[in-house]
Amino acid sequence: MNSEQAITSMAQSAQKAGRVLASIPTSKKNHALRRMAQALVRHQDYLTAENKKDLAGAQSQNYSKALIDRLTLTEKIINEMKNCLSDTAKLKDPVGQVMESFKRPNGLWIQKIRVPLGVVAIIYESRPNVTSDAIGLCLKSGNAAILKGGREALYSNQAVFKILRDELSKTEIPIDAIQLLPSDDRRAFGFLLKLDKYVDVVIPRGGEELIHFVAENTRIPVIKHYQGICHTYVSEHADLNMAHKICMNAKVQKPGVCNAMETMLIHKDAALRFLPVIVEDMQKAGVEIRGCPLTRKIVKKAIKAASEKDWDTEYLDLILSVKVVDRLEEAIDHINTHGSHHSDCIVTEDKKEAKQFLQSVDSACLYVNASTRFTDGHQFGFGAEIGISTDKLHARGPMALNELTTYKYLVFGKGQIRS
Amino acid sequence: MNSEQAITSMAQSAQKAGRVLASIPTSKKNHALRRMAQALVRHQDYLTAENKKDLAGAQSQNYSKALIDRLTLTEKIINEMKNCLSDTAKLKDPVGQVMESFKRPNGLWIQKIRVPLGVVAIIYESRPNVTSDAIGLCLKSGNAAILKGGREALYSNQAVFKILRDELSKTEIPIDAIQLLPSDDRRAFGFLLKLDKYVDVVIPRGGEELIHFVAENTRIPVIKHYQGICHTYVSEHADLNMAHKICMNAKVQKPGVCNAMETMLIHKDAALRFLPVIVEDMQKAGVEIRGCPLTRKIVKKAIKAASEKDWDTEYLDLILSVKVVDRLEEAIDHINTHGSHHSDCIVTEDKKEAKQFLQSVDSACLYVNASTRFTDGHQFGFGAEIGISTDKLHARGPMALNELTTYKYLVFGKGQIRS
Repeated sequence: MNSEQAITSMAQSAQKAGRVLASIPTSKKNHALRRMAQALVRHQDYLTAENKKDLAGAQSQNYSKALIDRLTLTEKIINEMKNCLSDTAKLKDPVGQVMESFKRPNGLWIQKIRVPLGVVAIIYESRPNVTSDAIGLCLKSGNAAILKGGREALYSNQAVFKILRDELSKTEIPIDAIQLLPSDDRRAFGFLLKLDKYVDVVIPRGGEELIHFVAENTRIPVIKHYQGICHTYVSEHADLNMAHKICMNAKVQKPGVCNAMETMLIHKDAALRFLPVIVEDMQKAGVEIRGCPLTRKIVKKAIKAASEKDWDTEYLDLILSVKVVDRLEEAIDHINTHGSHHSDCIVTEDKKEAKQFLQSVDSACLYVNASTRFTDGHQFGFGAEIGISTDKLHARGPMALNELTTYKYLVFGKGQIRS
Repeated sequence: MNSEQAITSMAQSAQKAGRVLASIPTSKKNHALRRMAQALVRHQDYLTAENKKDLAGAQSQNYSKALIDRLTLTEKIINEMKNCLSDTAKLKDPVGQVMESFKRPNGLWIQKIRVPLGVVAIIYESRPNVTSDAIGLCLKSGNAAILKGGREALYSNQAVFKILRDELSKTEIPIDAIQLLPSDDRRAFGFLLKLDKYVDVVIPRGGEELIHFVAENTRIPVIKHYQGICHTYVSEHADLNMAHKICMNAKVQKPGVCNAMETMLIHKDAALRFLPVIVEDMQKAGVEIRGCPLTRKIVKKAIKAASEKDWDTEYLDLILSVKVVDRLEEAIDHINTHGSHHSDCIVTEDKKEAKQFLQSVDSACLYVNASTRFTDGHQFGFGAEIGISTDKLHARGPMALNELTTYKYLVFGKGQIRS
């Protein structure tokens, strides 16, 4: 059997298993999730040993410390993986939920109910915990999962997968509901992207390059976010102390993530009071500032000039571009033009202004007086997160169990025909 | 200005107008819809005159009678177009609807609200009434619309569009919210499909060839249905009189539409009683039957043998393939394998069996004891229809105003930061 046949057969068996899984009751899915959670801890030594093979490979290839950190399966991380699975067992099962129910004048009774998407392919990089987190969310939402991790985490992902699949074999869930693609075979992955007959959605989690590769090489629907170019706009009606705390948090608390602030906008009437202080504090926190001409004039210290390119850049780093604007509308235009429709914030005490911002900015999550760092499935109370979407169709913003479902209409009649 | 610049500029101005339209209150949108409805009737003579140019063209090219029928703007059709617009004014505005609202332990208050998609491109064939129907639905749901009709309806579409746009100019809605692409320029249309920066979704309405062309030539999300291969399964527990009526209706009442039955499945224990009668009545109604070996044996008349290809064919005509199955599971497998995930029906008095069918068949609309012909936005009570989706993401089944929206999260804080 060649590689393409093997991948097709894998996808077919995933689809078949997914159709069985779609009807498996919540209690049995939760039972499997709890068993899988325990198994990860029970096989901790095996996991750590396999992980060391990846770590040795990463060191020999001089990978960055950040990447090696993400790759390492410590006892703490394994415990978090266990908790993620057992917490997923506690979440409300979306499958079968009646979203709407209505009767037509001709007596037809129509129900709109949540059903699994079917087969979900998840492509990710480095972190081996995604293997168990994603499997947990897919199983709970009744979906079969086909995973492909990064080459650098080959042994770790295989070990996590083997433990979970062995455990699944002791439950009523068909083991083919979870599948792992060889992570050292990019052609196999490329071929999977052609199988729109069997795979219902692809969720790429990783760098922009990976996401572009997926989006450009498949006709399967992709849920994705390319970038998080998040803004905070400090209005002349802002509580400037609050604005200071929010901006510092949005930039500094964890700069390498998609919901961190990349550009700060300030109304000209607040700039004189606000900018000198925050620029100093940002610099103390190690942030490089790139300012518009007015910012550089007001701050009176040597800071870099922002180029046009800066407004369109997701730094994912301790760098911040700063712009002074004349009016709220200018801020809104800037965000709609240069942002990535992810998360944007206004700091203001003026409700009318806040309303205009919320209505006019075209982003997944809009904040009034809070840090953009809250855009996250856990922070939103979804109990989990499979990703964040900056697309508009199907799902927008943090995605969890509900976003892994679609619906179908059930129509109950008594012989009605159309006249 | 060359054609590509013109199309880009059109899409940009649509996006800009869409952002204004997104905040326009319901009453003003309804006012515009009612004005547009009246204008169509007021300018009936102009409409009819322009339509005649298309009809003359169609006749000179020897187009089919069916196509010429679809193209003709009679007084009745113009009145229906008027009614569609004024009925759309009566529908509930989805924009701004609070879908969910919840408070987090840290005091953040999160609202999930419906918002327009932005810019909707609709590509369609022959029927000029789609021009006004689609414009009405897009405006009501706060979306800018870019339309492209068929070359055969060039003058009619331009006339409808001119009347509506002139009327829009007398309202507070920016006229750029509706745009008509030159219908005789396929390159212009191809270029529009590249503008994923400005266009949020494409809805192709027409033959399979058109839909494939769109899906294969754009990175803009497409909502579509390729085919309607709909099944009715007559169980051995069916009320056979009811089954007879349902099957006749699903096949004969309007065979050229996507929700008509293409394949009839019968349990072997019902086949002897059911098949001879229905085959005779189908034949009387002009239906050509293509049967599986057992069907041909039971019916005892000369009917064509169904080939493997028949099970995968959307006839859109008075042709029906018929298959006898051994078990419910065989019917389910057949539908999941050969169907198009559109609309499928089981006729049975056995509730347990109905439940299994509803759980296991992977289609947008599933019927128990009713004709599949009800899959339609109006029949479902949505008041309108922009299309039917056999996709699983975003929208499934009949699509109307809600399906032309997405959502955003509004997060209200009092200075919350993430720790």
